[in-house]
Amino acid sequence: VAADLLVFAVPGIPEIAPAADLARVIAGAVRSATDPQRAIEPGDVFVVAQKVVSKAEDAVVRLGEVTPSALAIEWAAAAGKDPRVVEVVLAQSKRIVRMDRGVLITETHHGFVCANAGVDASNAGGPGRLVLLPLDPDASARRLRARLRARLGVAPAVVVTDSFGRAWRIGQAEVAIGCAGLAPVDDWRGRTDTDGRELHGTVIAIADEAASAADLVRDKGSREPAVRIRGLGRQVPGGDGPGAAALLRAAADDLFG
Amino acid sequence: VAADLLVFAVPGIPEIAPAADLARVIAGAVRSATDPQRAIEPGDVFVVAQKVVSKAEDAVVRLGEVTPSALAIEWAAAAGKDPRVVEVVLAQSKRIVRMDRGVLITETHHGFVCANAGVDASNAGGPGRLVLLPLDPDASARRLRARLRARLGVAPAVVVTDSFGRAWRIGQAEVAIGCAGLAPVDDWRGRTDTDGRELHGTVIAIADEAASAADLVRDKGSREPAVRIRGLGRQVPGGDGPGAAALLRAAADDLFG
Repeated sequence: VAADLLVFAVPGIPEIAPAADLARVIAGAVRSATDPQRAIEPGDVFVVAQKVVSKAEDAVVRLGEVTPSALAIEWAAAAGKDPRVVEVVLAQSKRIVRMDRGVLITETHHGFVCANAGVDASNAGGPGRLVLLPLDPDASARRLRARLRARLGVAPAVVVTDSFGRAWRIGQAEVAIGCAGLAPVDDWRGRTDTDGRELHGTVIAIADEAASAADLVRDKGSREPAVRIRGLGRQVPGGDGPGAAALLRAAADDLFG
Repeated sequence: VAADLLVFAVPGIPEIAPAADLARVIAGAVRSATDPQRAIEPGDVFVVAQKVVSKAEDAVVRLGEVTPSALAIEWAAAAGKDPRVVEVVLAQSKRIVRMDRGVLITETHHGFVCANAGVDASNAGGPGRLVLLPLDPDASARRLRARLRARLGVAPAVVVTDSFGRAWRIGQAEVAIGCAGLAPVDDWRGRTDTDGRELHGTVIAIADEAASAADLVRDKGSREPAVRIRGLGRQVPGGDGPGAAALLRAAADDLFG
């Protein structure tokens, strides 16, 4: 029998400046809660939007410092985009998946396939700025987990998330780009169904589902970049674990290969 | 400020037989709960696994009644599959997306792109049976919503879900294949970020994120096909709404077009 899941935003997170100590900010918000149910508990998962992780790590580019390449200039003109933005996207990419009708989908250096290599101008902390994905989101999650443990006395799990478009479906869904302390997948292969048949091919992307669950309580118009999930203890085994890198499918295996 | 989200399984759902009255079963489980917090509330969302919806609608094929085509026989032999299973998958499909190395991904008649057209032999109620997707999952959701309203006195939202593989990412995530009473997407285009910049391209697949959140409390080894989500009231506007069909991206627009 499964445990109930409780999902709630961490209130009172201020604008995050470069080199901000995100663990201090989040731990402070947790400790200032008066409701004892909001105190930290073993197995709690902190789901943190990539945007604030990147800003704390100063993974931000100023457009004034970008010199676009010929490719960026040409495609930007055809697509009605800023060539400097296109240049930043290309610099974050190792492979172009689609470059067509104003849509630029690439594989990032990390191996994520997403629109504009995850580069985003919204909530960037000011005009003329672009927020990049963290350099190594799993390392970001591990650091944040260690620092939250130091401040809170209990090691939570940490998931760093971003909104990705999907093939074949409308709308974005929040997915895990970094993860520490949460098992990223739950592998049911070899286990049996209620008829005794093996559950073939059942590998569940727990970290992505947790990212999506957290997104449901996040108001994109306000500043609620951190969300807590309680009730996933079964998926919080103790160590950092393999991280969200375990959710990356190699291009050669793609389309569910 | 967002509301907390509470996600919990509906206990005590028995094996669902053909022509079972799923609303009666679910409403009975809700009404037998002794905890007053488990009583129905306006804005509650019932997330129901496709498997039990299909079984109640008798969307089940007996393998003994299937005659495979030449294509099914040939590919099944190459892939080491049962040609009758392949035949059923092909019959549920309007387009083959990939047919390679044992992987068969198709677009179903509904427009879903998924492995094996959603046809599944696990928990099928007995050997030699395959459970299909419901004929019209949005209609299934609308019917279930109306019947739950009649029995519970409050109209909940209903989401019918299945586990789909994803391009580029490991593991399956639960998505909405049918929906009534829940806004399937939350469209932030035109609204602004905290810097006053328009949030371009921000359409959030709420129904898919709700499906994923529900999956986190579902134990695939036991029978917990129905999950409730409380706290999504903002996304439960009243009517049936456009359904999960609003989440289907036309093939011509694919790759985030």
